[in-house]
Amino acid sequence: MADDEFTLERSLGAQIKRTQRALSRALAARLAPHDVPIGMWYFLRALWEEDGLSQKEISDRVGATAATATEQLRNMEARGLVRRARSAEDRRRIHFFLEPDGEALRSLLALPQDVETRATAGFSVGEVAFLRMALGRLRTNLAAIEGEQDGDLDDPDDN
Amino acid sequence: MADDEFTLERSLGAQIKRTQRALSRALAARLAPHDVPIGMWYFLRALWEEDGLSQKEISDRVGATAATATEQLRNMEARGLVRRARSAEDRRRIHFFLEPDGEALRSLLALPQDVETRATAGFSVGEVAFLRMALGRLRTNLAAIEGEQDGDLDDPDDN
Repeated sequence: MADDEFTLERSLGAQIKRTQRALSRALAARLAPHDVPIGMWYFLRALWEEDGLSQKEISDRVGATAATATEQLRNMEARGLVRRARSAEDRRRIHFFLEPDGEALRSLLALPQDVETRATAGFSVGEVAFLRMALGRLRTNLAAIEGEQDGDLDDPDDN
Repeated sequence: MADDEFTLERSLGAQIKRTQRALSRALAARLAPHDVPIGMWYFLRALWEEDGLSQKEISDRVGATAATATEQLRNMEARGLVRRARSAEDRRRIHFFLEPDGEALRSLLALPQDVETRATAGFSVGEVAFLRMALGRLRTNLAAIEGEQDGDLDDPDDN
């Protein structure tokens, strides 16, 4: 980079941010026709992977708070995508099961992979591998800087 | 990617998101000792680059709304980093000038470049160039998908 003039717009940080937004946008745009917000997709995914999970198990897999899970699952129930059933063993435990309409959306499970396959169209296997490795090295270097300045900078959003 | 099993955690999207957060965190951590939030940094940057800009010119360069600019510049004034002065020609126009305390922070102008230099430590010039190119190609491919589905998906956050 020695000879290039550094400008904020051209910075790697800006490039990475723009790329991240383009990926999110592509995902959201492909979910939109099904009226499934990205947050709901994560909850459906848990059940597509294992139907009949308890509310607690779903929240854990999604990494959502109890309040978010309650609201999201209620929405999904109102949309007829899932139904709830109390556990026979433990009446306090609530399980969720896919309804036919929720099952019918299962093809959306492959969406992120599909977006990614199209985003990397024309990349060789080696190029994708290099890209992953380069991103990993950036994070390793950044973690080392962080260690120098302050050991206590956890990202609360990181789960 | 053909043989790898795709998992959401290992997806390029997740890698890019994590890298972006690591970059933001590194920047914020280096600004913290100076008590300069990243939002304020952008406003100071406008004046470090050209002292005495009008409020309108500053908002335009930062890409901030009038309300955000009013609040941010008031904060900066209260901290003694800038002072305001009405234009002699047009009494409605307000200009901002760096105070010595604002001038003293000028070294923070190089911060993003500094973070980036450290993030890419150990990368060859060619590797950095490839990384930039790969990110650009991802965006080009994603833009092509977007074009297919809907011509009207501007990111309101993109400025």
